[in-house]
Amino acid sequence: MKLSILGCYSATPRIIAHTTSQVLETRGHLFLIDCGEGTQVELRRHKIKFNQIKHIFISHLHGDHYFGLVGLISTFRLLTRETDLHIYGPKGLKEIITLQLKLSDSWTNFKLIFHVLTSKTSELVFEDEKVAVETIPLDHRVYTNGFLFKEKPFERKLDITKAEALNIDKAYFRKLKQGDDVVNEDGTLIPNAEVTFDGHQPKSYAFCSDTAYKEDIIPLIKDVDVLYHESTFLEDHDYLCAKTKHSTAKQAATIALKANVKQLILGHYSTRYNGIEGFRTEALTVFKNVLLADDGKEFSF
Amino acid sequence: MKLSILGCYSATPRIIAHTTSQVLETRGHLFLIDCGEGTQVELRRHKIKFNQIKHIFISHLHGDHYFGLVGLISTFRLLTRETDLHIYGPKGLKEIITLQLKLSDSWTNFKLIFHVLTSKTSELVFEDEKVAVETIPLDHRVYTNGFLFKEKPFERKLDITKAEALNIDKAYFRKLKQGDDVVNEDGTLIPNAEVTFDGHQPKSYAFCSDTAYKEDIIPLIKDVDVLYHESTFLEDHDYLCAKTKHSTAKQAATIALKANVKQLILGHYSTRYNGIEGFRTEALTVFKNVLLADDGKEFSF
Repeated sequence: MKLSILGCYSATPRIIAHTTSQVLETRGHLFLIDCGEGTQVELRRHKIKFNQIKHIFISHLHGDHYFGLVGLISTFRLLTRETDLHIYGPKGLKEIITLQLKLSDSWTNFKLIFHVLTSKTSELVFEDEKVAVETIPLDHRVYTNGFLFKEKPFERKLDITKAEALNIDKAYFRKLKQGDDVVNEDGTLIPNAEVTFDGHQPKSYAFCSDTAYKEDIIPLIKDVDVLYHESTFLEDHDYLCAKTKHSTAKQAATIALKANVKQLILGHYSTRYNGIEGFRTEALTVFKNVLLADDGKEFSF
Repeated sequence: MKLSILGCYSATPRIIAHTTSQVLETRGHLFLIDCGEGTQVELRRHKIKFNQIKHIFISHLHGDHYFGLVGLISTFRLLTRETDLHIYGPKGLKEIITLQLKLSDSWTNFKLIFHVLTSKTSELVFEDEKVAVETIPLDHRVYTNGFLFKEKPFERKLDITKAEALNIDKAYFRKLKQGDDVVNEDGTLIPNAEVTFDGHQPKSYAFCSDTAYKEDIIPLIKDVDVLYHESTFLEDHDYLCAKTKHSTAKQAATIALKANVKQLILGHYSTRYNGIEGFRTEALTVFKNVLLADDGKEFSF
């Protein structure tokens, strides 16, 4: 998986602090997660082939997470896109987008398919043979979901030299990669493990922004490889969390610890602080693998 | 008047080409004209005190002219603005903005006053003692207005030395500045012209984007000091004008010539060209005072 952070600051876009948007590249997909104002320009800046985006996930209807969506859709239209575009987001998003397309007399030539999210429990919203995406219901001022991206098991890797030595017909190679045993040309049963290695380890990524500290999400994100968890505040502003329904860096780290994730990435920083290193310092007091998201940063895992 | 170009390129925002937005400073007002995606960031970049904007004029509901408006309003809210905000634009704009504020549960603390424009003939939409703003109905694919900003006559300048020598009571100075004759302490009538000079020359600015070539606007913008007229295309693409309802640089210059304006500023360039100098070259074949708008440029007049 490759995660590209286009923006990870809260509230309002500034010259050098973009609001939430990220691209997750996994198994041939380019998933766009949230789409703050200016996202299309950041996609260009980071040379992401954004016409290949087919699925957009919107966590909630606060502007810093979706105000760039209508512009991106309009640009797709101007670039004469023809591929379907799936948008997963809260009720109301479809109305917002279609009202604007209608009033500008700018219907898209491609199909715009809205998947309206309303469930308060986790649900599977996308699945193909390679990846599944589930919602992570969060606790924010408006209806909000995080998203869990899970790669499905990769094919097993074939030991070709051995397979040829054992006189296995090439027609069976596909079955072997899928984990099946096969019978060779001589009629001998060849157990799968004898001619294959484990494939790549499937990875998982959980995106959780925006949310108050919510232990209910722990079973949903248990053992994920990477958790992006918002940390709008530092602990000395924790009194703001209840009203705004945001988290501190320490709370994000506590969730990471309790969910036994391998890596925590912090983001959605309030711009009231002088720099972001303090978020990492605070989180490290609770959990050891902490990275800081920042605009333009990439993470591969 | 001081005109700051925040963006002047057509269609979609790019890294170094912003969509339409400009700020006109005149007689204590900061008027925002159009508001493409990313306008709030450009306002910050150019250090414009954007909390002083009280009137926003939206020409039409194509995204490159208004997608930044909802974000700007949301930012005003986050900055705890209290001043009324007047928005002048086509029918539908109010619905677009209020739907988004409603769904994000983010009503503004300040008053948001929409002035819905529907007239197909020019109308006065704003007026105070210093400035008047009238619409300029344009010819585009959707309902579109340009805007004409006209300063009202400035006060006359007082020749204080002469006024004192003529024994005029200070209480009459205000009347003199307003152009009235007065009677001095000795009972003598003092004609205004004897103790005052002409005040500053009132200026006028016409913003015309987007539009096909439309001679109907000529009487409305006759003799203005500065005309901003769109020139999306060069003449070799003039066959695109009819379908897209845009103008060439030559057409913009022809309007400038026929309306006898003092200065033409071109903008709303298609990004298909290599640079913008060609627009000026083409316009100069018809009209002599041609300037090119560009992102970040300022014009004082």
